[in-house]
Amino acid sequence: MAPPFTQLLLLLQLLLITLFTLTSSSPHHQHRGGHPLDSITPSEFAQVRSIILSSRLASNHHHHHHNLTFQYVGLDPPPKPTLLSWLSSSPTSSLPPRRAFAIIRFDKQTFEITIDLSTNTIVFDQLYNGPEYPLFTGEEQAEATLLPLSYPPFLESLRKRGLKVEEVVCVTYSVGWFGGRAKAKREMKALCFYLNGTVNLYVRPLEGITVVVDLDVMEISRYYDRITVPVPKADGTEFRTFNVEPPFGPNVNGVTIVQPDGPGFVMDGHIIRWANWNFHLGFDVRAGVIISLASIFDVQKQEFRRVLYKAYVSELFVPYMDPTEEWYYKTFFDAGEFGFGLCTLPLEPLRDCPANAVFIDAFYAGQDGKPLQIPNALCVFERYAGDVMWRHTETGIPGQFIREVRPEVTLVVRMVSTVGNYDYIIDWEFKQSGSIVAKVGLSGILEVKGTAYTHTDKINEEAFGTLIAENTLGIYHDHFLSYHIDLDIDGEANSFVKNKLVTKRVKDNSSLRKSYWTVEKVTARTESEANIKVGTEAAELVVVNPNKKTKLGNPIGYRLIPRSPPASSLLSDDDYPQIRGAFTKYDLWVTPYNNSEKWVAGLYADQSRGDDTIATWSERDREIENKDIVLWYTVGFHHVPSQEDFPVMPTLSGGFELRPTNFFEANPVLNSRVPMPVNWPNCTSPHK
Amino acid sequence: MAPPFTQLLLLLQLLLITLFTLTSSSPHHQHRGGHPLDSITPSEFAQVRSIILSSRLASNHHHHHHNLTFQYVGLDPPPKPTLLSWLSSSPTSSLPPRRAFAIIRFDKQTFEITIDLSTNTIVFDQLYNGPEYPLFTGEEQAEATLLPLSYPPFLESLRKRGLKVEEVVCVTYSVGWFGGRAKAKREMKALCFYLNGTVNLYVRPLEGITVVVDLDVMEISRYYDRITVPVPKADGTEFRTFNVEPPFGPNVNGVTIVQPDGPGFVMDGHIIRWANWNFHLGFDVRAGVIISLASIFDVQKQEFRRVLYKAYVSELFVPYMDPTEEWYYKTFFDAGEFGFGLCTLPLEPLRDCPANAVFIDAFYAGQDGKPLQIPNALCVFERYAGDVMWRHTETGIPGQFIREVRPEVTLVVRMVSTVGNYDYIIDWEFKQSGSIVAKVGLSGILEVKGTAYTHTDKINEEAFGTLIAENTLGIYHDHFLSYHIDLDIDGEANSFVKNKLVTKRVKDNSSLRKSYWTVEKVTARTESEANIKVGTEAAELVVVNPNKKTKLGNPIGYRLIPRSPPASSLLSDDDYPQIRGAFTKYDLWVTPYNNSEKWVAGLYADQSRGDDTIATWSERDREIENKDIVLWYTVGFHHVPSQEDFPVMPTLSGGFELRPTNFFEANPVLNSRVPMPVNWPNCTSPHK
Repeated sequence: MAPPFTQLLLLLQLLLITLFTLTSSSPHHQHRGGHPLDSITPSEFAQVRSIILSSRLASNHHHHHHNLTFQYVGLDPPPKPTLLSWLSSSPTSSLPPRRAFAIIRFDKQTFEITIDLSTNTIVFDQLYNGPEYPLFTGEEQAEATLLPLSYPPFLESLRKRGLKVEEVVCVTYSVGWFGGRAKAKREMKALCFYLNGTVNLYVRPLEGITVVVDLDVMEISRYYDRITVPVPKADGTEFRTFNVEPPFGPNVNGVTIVQPDGPGFVMDGHIIRWANWNFHLGFDVRAGVIISLASIFDVQKQEFRRVLYKAYVSELFVPYMDPTEEWYYKTFFDAGEFGFGLCTLPLEPLRDCPANAVFIDAFYAGQDGKPLQIPNALCVFERYAGDVMWRHTETGIPGQFIREVRPEVTLVVRMVSTVGNYDYIIDWEFKQSGSIVAKVGLSGILEVKGTAYTHTDKINEEAFGTLIAENTLGIYHDHFLSYHIDLDIDGEANSFVKNKLVTKRVKDNSSLRKSYWTVEKVTARTESEANIKVGTEAAELVVVNPNKKTKLGNPIGYRLIPRSPPASSLLSDDDYPQIRGAFTKYDLWVTPYNNSEKWVAGLYADQSRGDDTIATWSERDREIENKDIVLWYTVGFHHVPSQEDFPVMPTLSGGFELRPTNFFEANPVLNSRVPMPVNWPNCTSPHK
Repeated sequence: MAPPFTQLLLLLQLLLITLFTLTSSSPHHQHRGGHPLDSITPSEFAQVRSIILSSRLASNHHHHHHNLTFQYVGLDPPPKPTLLSWLSSSPTSSLPPRRAFAIIRFDKQTFEITIDLSTNTIVFDQLYNGPEYPLFTGEEQAEATLLPLSYPPFLESLRKRGLKVEEVVCVTYSVGWFGGRAKAKREMKALCFYLNGTVNLYVRPLEGITVVVDLDVMEISRYYDRITVPVPKADGTEFRTFNVEPPFGPNVNGVTIVQPDGPGFVMDGHIIRWANWNFHLGFDVRAGVIISLASIFDVQKQEFRRVLYKAYVSELFVPYMDPTEEWYYKTFFDAGEFGFGLCTLPLEPLRDCPANAVFIDAFYAGQDGKPLQIPNALCVFERYAGDVMWRHTETGIPGQFIREVRPEVTLVVRMVSTVGNYDYIIDWEFKQSGSIVAKVGLSGILEVKGTAYTHTDKINEEAFGTLIAENTLGIYHDHFLSYHIDLDIDGEANSFVKNKLVTKRVKDNSSLRKSYWTVEKVTARTESEANIKVGTEAAELVVVNPNKKTKLGNPIGYRLIPRSPPASSLLSDDDYPQIRGAFTKYDLWVTPYNNSEKWVAGLYADQSRGDDTIATWSERDREIENKDIVLWYTVGFHHVPSQEDFPVMPTLSGGFELRPTNFFEANPVLNSRVPMPVNWPNCTSPHK
């Protein structure tokens, strides 16, 4: 919810996010020619910067370039028909035009710029004059968080409380939108925390102090010191291995994953080939990891078949449930405001990902447009958890004991986005049996509220949360991750079908049974027929290709199975955060593919007013039958904090499975063979 | 659904289930004294047999002992108060009386016998004269399946169809109950299948032929050859590695789990100690694996705290949705009729369980009362899947880059029960963070119906299923696993609380927000207040100990989180299978602990009439607030077969998590340390 960019500038040099030197050769540097869906490369970021800084736009103004900030730079992917046509053409055919899309702030205005990287030209630019604003940069947030530390009223507030400024760290928060019609300034709120004995800053809020920063002039525009509550104590908040105090525990023996022959997947540029899967791996500063062009090899048909055109986290909406002055606005759009990719931080080998993982760097444009590198931003590994892919024991045949078991090995792409306090572990898991499983693990630190209460018995007013430590309320909130899922099941033209399970009565005494259930297939003709709160009725949710059938005549499809309890929004429809995060009204929406509909809560999320959300797009109630359709599924969590979530929260998981349903003619892994056994090497005869 | 006991007798000698020699010393033989919850041992089975065979009951009758059959023998555990009192007494205090419970058939009658193993006496016996029957034995089913093969009308049916009797295998099915008031004979139906080129018998039914066997006289009592449909072909049904035909694939590189220091858990008799968990592992021929007395060590309190008194699969109800003559009765109770433990088959090392697994044998009483062994019936292993237990990256503090990640290692107890065609992979997973996760994986082979259809276009009547291969319908059905979950959260007296998440409107203009949600805690006072269809409202489902609170005053509790979409029954309330499997009306029931309420669909499931189910127990609407309560949660699947499920089904998973919720004062794994790194040995300097 809160951004992690305090002192980011310092960090840049200091520790991990290294300025990418364009002359260096990276092992992950893309192969010659590249792929049209490859993320913008470091040299391309530099090219975008150069084109924009030397453009009419920048040169026409009497300002220095440092007033021009890059709020977003990313790939403007080729139109889907263009890309599909390229894919179906010969391998040597020329690449589609390669374009970048940038949103810049210049002279307190927002500009959208599309650049053709092949021709080195701006092909489109326009002033965006709406009341909403683009993503924050890390740098401007870092700058904003320093302002309070030299702001006399804030220093006075610290003095009153007896706190040392050198132990204070501030964090920036988006301000939201609450019904005003006038265009508001581009502001953030800075809230401050007290270290003094801990590094777990989020659990020690200076509750009651709110600093409002005008980002365009980088000045404090308003300041409130409304209430004073005790700063929660530092004891028991430390989480670093070498600083936690005994008693320790629990302990477990060492355990690791071993692949003596190395990982079984191949990376060809950003195409990953593993077992029967092929897909493209991308990264975007807003979305984070992007899976594209996932196809699966059909052993029976001896060909690759298309499953998924693109999938990514389109938005992550986190509204808090405390309407009081210091908290009402905490309704964050972690992708659209803070950049789910921008908050991606380096994975730790052997801990964030197992020993057999391969790590991949990611790049994005800094505020000045120069490329920045996130080392180890993604990892890819074969997952073996001791599970079973399929099995059967047959004891029914005289004289035979038949037991066939195929262990389950899957491929996982992982990233972790730490949006301030929370850590989101994002997994895309590919199963040989054809399933794609999206998982999210929630860990990190709760957004807590300082309070005078030290025991629930003393709470004599509505607290809006759980008392999770002394002077510490874990405020109720939601996490809503909207997944953009552009399935192309054996082609673009697909339909969304609810296979409703309906009870039938036996009426004619033809059976001793009185009832049974059967399947009624209801194809959604338009968008409004597709929206659902999952779980309110028994139904399978299937995307089919109505133009193709199995040899037996079944519609070829994939179905979506929740892996955690669905959770749609409980906010009132007319509440402002709900208008902005309208996608949370249903767990699932289906839209016809539209190149401009990428961000479920709008291209501009900061101070958005709900004018550009899936709810407004869907008002047209467009036809979705036998069309190129996109599913938008929300993995939601209503989070009632508990004491276990303090001071760092054990991972809570959710997700969904996309599972083939009459896509194959039969079990696609029937003819898979068990991987060769692996033995711990006998060191008297050296291995390898 | 269908039992796996054809030719079991042959198998006994032949391959794997070996008669346990009482004089042998088994590495898993229990330690001296044992534990009151240990399953009945081989010598105790022999003792039970001996006591019953020499009893007044058997000797008073002029029959040979081979007419006396043991339908069920299991532990009659000490009453809960007795056991708890023993647990809290000194370690040297004498064990509670050790008792076995047996259900035998003798002279076409059912007897219930309770035996005191310490005093070698029958302490209770009674004739059970109800219309329902106990579990089938493997041996009687095996015998029944042979009857058709020498039955002239059946041979004539084969001749008519041009089929060879030597390629026919039959399987027994329970007949159910459909409203008759008279007591019916103890019968099963035998359905037959055709091998002739496959070992996948279940996909080649001789549809239309029904053999009814009177088990008590072991004779065919009725025979029907109603319809003739083509036997589905054998092509493409083979699933054995060395018999499947190319093309093969997909392939993956070898991968394994390594623990150089060995598994990190200790088995003390049947008590397993691992990390911060202690629990007892039991096995019952009806329930399969039983987890008891799970306690977790609280690092802060430096003591073990009680979580779970007992958990097991109480019933597995699988009703099919085809009301026609050959299928209407297929409404199986896999635990109560067929024995979920009886269907447990040996696990395959390296495939069913990873390389670091430890295997445990199980024992049960054969039909003659003699002990039989299931080698490798259970496995226990530390699961490491590359997941993260908790993590946080902190970049907000000047000059510091803090990243702490704790990999997730859990402990899994696994068994696989193959109830005829279906394989159920049952996992109990213990997390260091306090969660217990119950998982079930469904694999194996669909129960299919032979049909003339070879393409969906030709289907001109209701088919009750999916055409999944030529001449093969995968009939719609459900899998409902009812988990008996006797939580004792820090003691027996617990309450069930729905933490309802309710929307609140801001009415007084005190906030710019218009709404938020909060938690309304509703404690279920009686059974009827607890029953719920999960997912119909936003609520956390919590079991609390209302007599204990955290230091902060929060009620100490655990909550239940579904890990797969809840699925309650779609059958009509008045339908006979639904009356018998009434537990499926709600996903969750809560009852006060009652020693006699072990089996959610009744002690006698075969031909049961719903007189002894959780629905009848709950009619009294007993008080459950601040009582010793039991949760009965159903993991349900509405299964619409797809072609991928043929000829063996890729695992489909479901389950639930029991997660501490203000049970601990804080994150219980904050002070856990990362396991020592494991390196692939450098063989120039030998490891160890």
